[in-house]
Amino acid sequence: MSAVVNARTDDYRILAQAEILHHLAALPEIAAILGGSPADWTIRDVADGYINAVFIIDGPQGGVCAKQALPWVRYHGDSWPLAEDRAFFEASYMRRLAAIVGPLAPRLLHFDPVLQFIVMEKLSPHIVLRGGLIEGRRFPRAAADVGRYVALAAFHTSDLGVPFERKFEDIGLFSGNISLLRISVDLIFVDPYVEVWRNRYISEIDPWAKALREDVELKTAVARHRNAFLSNRQALLHGDLHSGSVMVTEDDTRVIDGEFSTFGPIGFDLGAFAANLIINWYAQGGYDRDPAERDAHRQWLLEQIATLWQTFESELLALWAASPDTDGDGYPATHFADASGQARLATIRRDFTQAVFQDLVAFAAIKMIRRVISYAQVDDFGIIEDTKRRAETQASALAFARCVLKEPARFADLGAFLDAVPRFENVGLNPDANR
Amino acid sequence: MSAVVNARTDDYRILAQAEILHHLAALPEIAAILGGSPADWTIRDVADGYINAVFIIDGPQGGVCAKQALPWVRYHGDSWPLAEDRAFFEASYMRRLAAIVGPLAPRLLHFDPVLQFIVMEKLSPHIVLRGGLIEGRRFPRAAADVGRYVALAAFHTSDLGVPFERKFEDIGLFSGNISLLRISVDLIFVDPYVEVWRNRYISEIDPWAKALREDVELKTAVARHRNAFLSNRQALLHGDLHSGSVMVTEDDTRVIDGEFSTFGPIGFDLGAFAANLIINWYAQGGYDRDPAERDAHRQWLLEQIATLWQTFESELLALWAASPDTDGDGYPATHFADASGQARLATIRRDFTQAVFQDLVAFAAIKMIRRVISYAQVDDFGIIEDTKRRAETQASALAFARCVLKEPARFADLGAFLDAVPRFENVGLNPDANR
Repeated sequence: MSAVVNARTDDYRILAQAEILHHLAALPEIAAILGGSPADWTIRDVADGYINAVFIIDGPQGGVCAKQALPWVRYHGDSWPLAEDRAFFEASYMRRLAAIVGPLAPRLLHFDPVLQFIVMEKLSPHIVLRGGLIEGRRFPRAAADVGRYVALAAFHTSDLGVPFERKFEDIGLFSGNISLLRISVDLIFVDPYVEVWRNRYISEIDPWAKALREDVELKTAVARHRNAFLSNRQALLHGDLHSGSVMVTEDDTRVIDGEFSTFGPIGFDLGAFAANLIINWYAQGGYDRDPAERDAHRQWLLEQIATLWQTFESELLALWAASPDTDGDGYPATHFADASGQARLATIRRDFTQAVFQDLVAFAAIKMIRRVISYAQVDDFGIIEDTKRRAETQASALAFARCVLKEPARFADLGAFLDAVPRFENVGLNPDANR
Repeated sequence: MSAVVNARTDDYRILAQAEILHHLAALPEIAAILGGSPADWTIRDVADGYINAVFIIDGPQGGVCAKQALPWVRYHGDSWPLAEDRAFFEASYMRRLAAIVGPLAPRLLHFDPVLQFIVMEKLSPHIVLRGGLIEGRRFPRAAADVGRYVALAAFHTSDLGVPFERKFEDIGLFSGNISLLRISVDLIFVDPYVEVWRNRYISEIDPWAKALREDVELKTAVARHRNAFLSNRQALLHGDLHSGSVMVTEDDTRVIDGEFSTFGPIGFDLGAFAANLIINWYAQGGYDRDPAERDAHRQWLLEQIATLWQTFESELLALWAASPDTDGDGYPATHFADASGQARLATIRRDFTQAVFQDLVAFAAIKMIRRVISYAQVDDFGIIEDTKRRAETQASALAFARCVLKEPARFADLGAFLDAVPRFENVGLNPDANR
C-alpha cells in the first residue's frame, strides 16, 4: 500500500513564497540540497501550465522545484474550482513510477498531504520540450526516451507485468483522481463537439468547429474512444503526456506533471505525445523561418514520431519476451510453454502492439482537435500572431485529425500515418472543400 | 460513499450457532422479524456453496438468513485460506444494488465488518434454481428476471447511466475484492488449460482435458477474454451469476451471493447464467427421464436463454432510450441531439448490445469448460453416477464450448447460438473425432 493517505483537511492554505522557504527550511534533506541558510535562498514563480502554482527555489549549493495545487484552475481563476488533492495523485504517480522509469522522471523529495505541496528535483539546464520545438531546436533523445518511458510504465502496471492484485491496488488508488479526469473528459472528449463557454478557438476556425460539431461519423468515433478511455483499465497512464510535460536537454529527458494519472489505454499517452509533434509540424507553416530549415525540422519531427513508436514497441516486446515467468495474469507462461505456444505468443504480442498503435492514432487525432477548439490551447499555434495564418495551420491539423478518425483503415501502419501528415497542409478554412 | 468501511480486525472469530443467536438477539430489527424470544429461535446450517458458512434462523414470526465468511474455502478446508473480507464486498454489492434492482435481490438486514457476518431476508419458499432445473422443473420468470437484473445493474453502474465520478467511486471500492477475484481468474481462466492439483475432472474426461490444454487457438481466445475480464471496467458485475446464485419460486426470482462482485464486461454475468442453462441441457442426457419430458425441458431451457438475452437487450435499450438526459459520460446527449445524431444513436446502441452478445457467447463457453475441468464442479453433471455417461454429457458441453471459442463468427446471433447446442450432443469422448 502507498505510504501516504489522501489526507485533505481544513488546514490547507495557499502558501506565500516566504512560507514556502520556511517550510523547506524544516526539511533537512531539502535544506541540504539548497545549502547555506534560508536567508541565502531565492524563490521565483515559474508556473506556465494551466492549473498549479510552481516555484523554483535556489540556494548556494543547488535548487529544488516546489509545486502546490491551488483550489482552482490557476490560469482561469477562482471561478473554476478544482480539488486540491490532485497533488496527492501526482505524488502517488511519481512514487509508483520511480522504481520503474528511474532517471526518466525527476526525483520526488517531499509531499505534504495537508498543503497538497510537492517538492522535487530541480531540472537544470532542462527546458520544456514544447518551447524548444517551437524554436525549431532538436533534442535527439526525447522521442526515444518518451517511448521507453511509456513502455516501462505500461509493462509494469498492467496485466503483462504484474499480478492483477497489484494492478487493482493501483486502480483503487488512482480511481480517486476524479477532479482532473473530469477536466480530461470534458476538454478532450466533450467540449470540442459542442458549443460551450470554455471553448477558445479563434473566429477564423468557426466553420471548422461547426463542421466538427455537426459530423455524426466523427462524434461516433470519438464516442468509441471516450468509452475506451473510461473503461479500458489497461495500464497506469501519465494522462497528459504532451510536449509541455517533457523537460529536455540534448542528452536528458524527464517526464513531469503526472497529476492527470489514471488507468486507461496505453495508446492514450503515446497519442498525446505524437499529437503534439504533429501540431508542431503544422504550426511551423505559420512561422517566418528559412524554408529549408523548416523542411528539415518537419522531417525531423516525423522521424521522432517514428522513433517514439518504434522505441515503445521494441522496448515493450523486449520486456515481455525477457519475462517468460512474468507474474502478470494476462498471458500465463504455462498456457504458452510449448513450441506452438511460443510461436503463438509472438502473434499475440504483435496483435497487442498493433492494437496499441491503432489507439495511438485515434487518440492523437482527438488530442489535436482539442488543442485547437477546446479550452487549453498550445503556444505552437498561439505564437502565430496573424490569426488567419494561425487558423490555416490549425485547419490542417483538424483536417488530418478528422480523416484519421473517420477513415482509420487508411492509417493501419506507421508509414501510412506519417505519409499523410504533409498531405493535409494548406487544406484551407473551408471544411467542405476537398473532403 | 459507502457507510461502512472494510474494518477487518483481530477480533474476527468464527461464530458458533449459539453465538449467532446471541448476536441476532442484540439487533432489534432482526429480533422483531423473528419474533418471540431467543429461546424460541432455531438455527440450522444450510451451506451448500463452496466458500461460506450459511444458516437459516427461524422464530415464531419469521426467519432470516445469516452468512459468515470463513478464513478458508469451506468446501476444501483450512489448507485453502481465503480472506474473510469477502463478506464486506458482498454487503457492499447488496447495498449498491438495492435501489437499482429492488425486489430482484434479498434485502440486506445487517452487516458486521468485524465478524464479516451478514444477515439478510430469508427467502421462502424459494429454492436454488440449479436444483429445480436438475429436477426438470420450470420457473417461468427466472430467465426474464435475471436478464432484467443484469440490464438494471449494467445501466446504473456504467458510463451509460452514471457520471464517471460515481463509477470510479464504485471501482475504487470493488478493486479491493481481490481474494475472490483470484479464485475467478484461476478457476475460470487458468486452471482448465494446465495440469494443477485443483482440477477435479473425472478420468474419462482425460482425453478432452488434454486436448484443451494443447489447443493453442483455444487458449488464445481464452487469453483475449481473460484480459477483457481484467481490463474492461464496463459495469459492476455480480461475478458468479450461475444457476446456484439464483433463488426462485414460480413467480419470484432473487439473485444472491454477490461476493465475487467486480467491475468487468457485462457479458460475463449473462454468459455465466446462459452457460449453466446449457450445462443443464447437456446433463439432462445423463438422467433417466421420460424422453418426451426431457425434450420438452430442453426446449424450454433454450427458450430461457432466448428470454434471458431478449429481456436484457430490450430492458437495457429501454433504460438508455428513456434517459436522453442521462448523466452518463459514455454518449452525451449533446453529441447526438439532432436528427442524424438520434439516428446514429440507434446504431450505436445496436452495436453496443451486439458486442455484449459476443461477450456473452464467449464467456458462456469459458464458464462451461471450467465447470467440467476445474475445481468447482456442478451437480447437474455430478448426480449422473455412471461416470462414463456423465463424461459423455460433459464432452458435449466441452465440444460446444470449444467450437464457440474457436469459431465465434458461427455464433453471431442468438439463433445460431441456440441452434448449435443440440448439434454437439453425443460427440463422444474422443476430442479428435468430428472436429
